[in-house]
This record gives sequence, C-alpha cells and structure tokens, in this order.
Amino acid sequence: MHEPITSVTNPLVKRLVKLRNRRERDESGVFLIEGFRELTRAVDSGLVVREVYVCPDLFLGDHEDALIERAVAGGAERVVFGSSAFRKVSYRDRPEGLIGLADQFPASLDGLSLSANPLILVVESIEKPGNLGTMLRTADAAGVDAVIVCEPTTDPFNPNVVRASLGCLFLVPLAISSTPEAIDWLAERGIRTFSATPAAVLPHWRADFRGPSAIAIGSEQYGLTETWLQNGELIRIPMGGQVDSLNAAMAAGVALFEAVRQRSAAGLDPGT
Amino acid sequence: MHEPITSVTNPLVKRLVKLRNRRERDESGVFLIEGFRELTRAVDSGLVVREVYVCPDLFLGDHEDALIERAVAGGAERVVFGSSAFRKVSYRDRPEGLIGLADQFPASLDGLSLSANPLILVVESIEKPGNLGTMLRTADAAGVDAVIVCEPTTDPFNPNVVRASLGCLFLVPLAISSTPEAIDWLAERGIRTFSATPAAVLPHWRADFRGPSAIAIGSEQYGLTETWLQNGELIRIPMGGQVDSLNAAMAAGVALFEAVRQRSAAGLDPGT
Repeated sequence: MHEPITSVTNPLVKRLVKLRNRRERDESGVFLIEGFRELTRAVDSGLVVREVYVCPDLFLGDHEDALIERAVAGGAERVVFGSSAFRKVSYRDRPEGLIGLADQFPASLDGLSLSANPLILVVESIEKPGNLGTMLRTADAAGVDAVIVCEPTTDPFNPNVVRASLGCLFLVPLAISSTPEAIDWLAERGIRTFSATPAAVLPHWRADFRGPSAIAIGSEQYGLTETWLQNGELIRIPMGGQVDSLNAAMAAGVALFEAVRQRSAAGLDPGT
Repeated sequence: MHEPITSVTNPLVKRLVKLRNRRERDESGVFLIEGFRELTRAVDSGLVVREVYVCPDLFLGDHEDALIERAVAGGAERVVFGSSAFRKVSYRDRPEGLIGLADQFPASLDGLSLSANPLILVVESIEKPGNLGTMLRTADAAGVDAVIVCEPTTDPFNPNVVRASLGCLFLVPLAISSTPEAIDWLAERGIRTFSATPAAVLPHWRADFRGPSAIAIGSEQYGLTETWLQNGELIRIPMGGQVDSLNAAMAAGVALFEAVRQRSAAGLDPGT
C-alpha cells in the first residue's frame, strides 16, 4: 500500500491528468473510470480495474468501501489521495472520491456475439462525448445486441463518454470499426442496414425493423458519409418543427425505440 | 454609439457576467442570447433585442453584419467589444462574437394558442439546462403546440438552455406554470394527460396520443411529483437493457415521436 498522495505535483497525479488527452490514452492503452455508479458498472461487467484512486473525504454514500473491496478482490491496487490531489485528477465539479484505472478493452466486430434477430446501433464519427455516451446509455435501454462505433472522432474511453453513458459503456456490447469493415460485417450476416438522413423519403416508422436490423446515425455536423448512404436503406425522422433538426443522440433514440415498438407489436422481444 | 469596450473590469462586462445567475436574471428581467444561430432565431421570432454586443474579431462567418443590422432595425443598440472583454462575458469556450440582451418574455398558459388537436409537452422541475434545452429543441422538431415548463428548477432563460435549445426557446410556444395550474388548464381544455413513470404498466406505444394530448416528464432525479401521477394516465417507456434508465430529454423525445407516428398513421398532421 502506498502512502497517501497529497501533492498536486505528484508524478501519478500528472500522469492521470494527461489521460484526458486521447493521444495519452491511446499510447498508454489505459483509461479512467470516475464516479461510484460508473465504477460499479465497470466492476459488475467483469472489467479488470488495475488501480483504484480513493479519497474518503469526498465519499457521498456508505457503499464506497464495499465497491473498493470488490475492485481490490478483482486485482486492483488501492491508492489513497488527499482531496486537493484528487480534485486535480478528477474530471468533475463535484468529485465523488472514486476513480478507477483500467486497460482499454478490446472492441472488435469479431468479438460480438449476436442473438438470432439482432438489433444494432451504428454510429459514425460522433464528435461530442456527451452524445456518444448518451447513445450508449440509450442503446442499452433499448436492449440492442451491440453498438458499433465507426471512425470514432471521439473515442469511447473519453472520460465524458464514460460519464454520459452512466457506465453503460461497460454493459452494452461494443465494437470499434472502420466504416467499410462494419458494412461488410453487417452484409455477411444478412443484417439489414438503415441509414438515417434528413434527405430520405421513408419515415423511420415505415421501415421494417422486425428482422435483423442495424440503424446507422452520422455525425452531429455532417451526418452519415456517402458510404453508409449508398449501403443502407435511407430513413428519416419526420419533423414538424421550424428548425428541422434533432440532436444525433435523440435521433438514435427515436429510431431505436421505434424498432423496440415494432418488435414488441410483432411479439418479438427486442434482441431475441 | 459607444466607444468599444475593451476592459474586462468595465461595469457593463460585470453586469453581463452576473446574468449567469438566475437571481440576477429574475431581478433584472433580462437575459442573454449568445451565438449566431441562437440570435438569428430570436430575431426571426420577433423578439425585441435591446442590446447586441459584438466582437468582429471573433466572427466565424460572413452573415453576422446582416444579422446585427436586423437587430438594430428592430431597436437594438449595438455595442462593440474588444476580444478579452467579450470573452469575459461569453459563456462559451469558442465565442462567436455575438451576444444579445433581451427582456424575458411573458410565458403564461393563457398566452398559448392551440390547434384543434393539440400535442403538448409538459416538463416538471428539470434540473439540467442541457436537458431543458434539448427538450425544447426536440419538442419543436416534433411539431408540438406548446411546451409547459412546470415548477422550473432551471429557468428557460438560463444561457445553457438557450444554447442547448439551439434557439428553439424562441420558436416553440412556451408557458411557465405551477403544476396545479397546468393540470387545471389541461383539464379545462379536455386535453388528455399522460404521465411518464417507470412504475407504469402501459407501454407508451399503447397509449392513444391521437386526440388532444399532453405528455408529462419529470425531473432527472425524482421523476414526476405525485400530483402529476394522480392526474394523468400512467405510461412507461419499456426498457430492455441492464440499466433501465433513459435521460429525461430522451424519454420526452421517444414519447413525442410516438405521438407523431400515431397521428401520421391516423392521417392527422401533428398539431393540427
């Protein structure tokens, strides 16, 4: 067990702060999981947490010690921080005194295992971590088989993705892929692909999501690339307002829950 | 015309920074509209902008001057800022050099005018400005007749609401109300109220939104109060995931677009 880390210039503090940068995350192969709920879901999912940084002064509840014990039982080293050093590492305004360090987990298409009638969310080049996190959380709520993150502008291990996903990053089966690989992979499995674009004629509720289906949503600014538009059936979410735009995460949620509705009406459970 | 404001300690700069606080907004009765798109929608909506603060060095496009001229033609005073003073006032990481000051507009239930078959979003005690803004944007996209903001924990004039709404705050008819007043108002008009709660049995897609309907969504942390639960038909958004929670704004969007779907299938335009 280490001495408590109290200095904001401690080398570990500096190293952890650097993990906010994607390049540092990519080079080191690790990432941070901050917060009680997020770390709970990481441990629940069986993710091996290598180190757990704790600041008991900042704990909000009574269950932190039990969670830390579970992480330690799974192999994590426990490192105590003073509150200034912890606040320096924390990504939050009101830190909860718990941050885990884990290896980025493999997320390949070939690692996915699908049900007989899969429902998949594909997202391409999402820019905002909050949107990517919300998409993961919403996809989990819709009971998808997997989320395929294509050409990630923001990587799923970004601390704000972990946070906005409420830890669903650890629960929903995930693949990171190039767009051509994802298209081939879906085609090989006979999964019908629906590409959302405002230019489409077909309202999303007229698409038939009851069979094996993938719903593709593009970036906030540019939408889907031509490759997805040419390799999917085009759907749009009909809008009656003056602005005619939905947030990308909202578009994903509206389309996914229409699929859930159709499958329920057809007597199918989502994802079975 | 003023001299350009260059000092970050200028009294106007200080006064504008204070408008980030709700109490200051409430006492002064004014609020700020930052950004090209947001200010455009404010001017488009006919809102009288009293002052427009401009920093040409920060402009991103070529249309800023035309927008400022429209605001000035509508009665706004133009005040030029140096970039440090502007950045001090700005609420953004990358300011676009445009902020308007306007009076908070009246938003009473009695000011709403409804179509023959209204669709209304009711939100109660929403805490996060980003969620309230997203709800306004999504409600506009769904073509609602109105959004009723009950017991606002976050006021709609919060700068992050303006921002997350992309200026839809100025486009979608809005009322701010207490919960009992809203319930009475809806009942008097024969508008059927659906209250979303995870405890409900009825999936949202089995509710009949084809007639005059209000969909009520509660706060992120506590959901709807008992008053809404006792005065509405309970619906839930069925979830198939491991976490069983949707962001409040996402829940609003999923329910609203189900109403849009039903109305379209029934040959009704939303909101007509």
